[in-house]
Amino acid sequence: MKTPSSLTLLTESLRTLPGIGPKSAQRMAYHLLQHDRDGALQLSRALAQAAETIRHCALCNTFTEQVICDTCQDGERDTTVLCVVETPSDQLMIEQTLTFKGLYFVLMGRLSPLDGIGPKDIHLEKLITRATDGVVSEVVLATNFTNEGEATAHYISETLKARGLRVSRLARGVPVGGELEYVDAGTIARAMLDRRAT
Amino acid sequence: MKTPSSLTLLTESLRTLPGIGPKSAQRMAYHLLQHDRDGALQLSRALAQAAETIRHCALCNTFTEQVICDTCQDGERDTTVLCVVETPSDQLMIEQTLTFKGLYFVLMGRLSPLDGIGPKDIHLEKLITRATDGVVSEVVLATNFTNEGEATAHYISETLKARGLRVSRLARGVPVGGELEYVDAGTIARAMLDRRAT
Ligand SMILES: [Zn+2]
Ligand SMILES: [Zn+2]
Repeated sequence: MKTPSSLTLLTESLRTLPGIGPKSAQRMAYHLLQHDRDGALQLSRALAQAAETIRHCALCNTFTEQVICDTCQDGERDTTVLCVVETPSDQLMIEQTLTFKGLYFVLMGRLSPLDGIGPKDIHLEKLITRATDGVVSEVVLATNFTNEGEATAHYISETLKARGLRVSRLARGVPVGGELEYVDAGTIARAMLDRRAT
Repeated sequence: MKTPSSLTLLTESLRTLPGIGPKSAQRMAYHLLQHDRDGALQLSRALAQAAETIRHCALCNTFTEQVICDTCQDGERDTTVLCVVETPSDQLMIEQTLTFKGLYFVLMGRLSPLDGIGPKDIHLEKLITRATDGVVSEVVLATNFTNEGEATAHYISETLKARGLRVSRLARGVPVGGELEYVDAGTIARAMLDRRAT
């Protein structure tokens, strides 16, 4: 008894998704082929289109389809303050608090030596170039308050202060161990207002 | 702050996968774009190819790229016995036991009135046509021993017996290696009622 090769390939491809084991991948493949072929084709197109069109903003490093993202192009922003976040979701959370009118830099990760994630993986050179443009005077570190996020903030702080920049950190209004994405906007707003020099 | 439309579309498309909520979908989208664009393109191709090439075997209803699947084309099989299973995975499990040399019919589901899954969804007409070909003389019901699987077996049994076919069911009992102390009472009761001479 042989499984059709295109079904095997689909199951194996689904397994490359984070958090999907062999049983889940098989269930997904069966579901798509049995009940949702339109969904399979739409997901196929969405994957191809995103992989082809999504790039990183030349200034803030977030996902965008342009060279410079909408936020970085926004003329109303305070160009002297730069907020450093781990992910686009974290940036969105901060935007929703309406407490920050500066610009962002999105690391797309955090330092994690045990997982082999070093300064290059969080685009530290790009951040240094961005932060030392002569316009930015303060960098607010808004990485998560996890061990890795704190270590990342510390490392970036040392690096940027050595280049004469003022560096601050969100206040510890955010619960220790908490991830920004899951914290309520009021807490983040308080932490932004209480940010302190590091 | 606007999320790029192709990223939004990708996240929404991933959410249509069974068991994937908004947070998981976003994490998957970020992972693919950040770390595995080749994986994204491969999954895109696998989805399109499977959706285009996978059909249901005209005889046994399983997934195949041909009109008739390899198993149904196998000349070594006993064409007088048909084993009814819920999914291709169940068929594979039975194949691995090497105890069955007949042919199969794959329901691609089980009756579940509460979920709106009726006889049409498990291809009952196709099964009746297959089982009444004049060659099949016995149908072995190997649906799961869940409430829904049992109800499905009962329904199919009544339908096929009314057409003069011999219908059997996998034996219920204590699992091989099972210790009575850890087997539920219902299973032991069934094993007692179904006890066989040795
Ligand atoms: Zn940008
Ligand atoms: Zn077949």
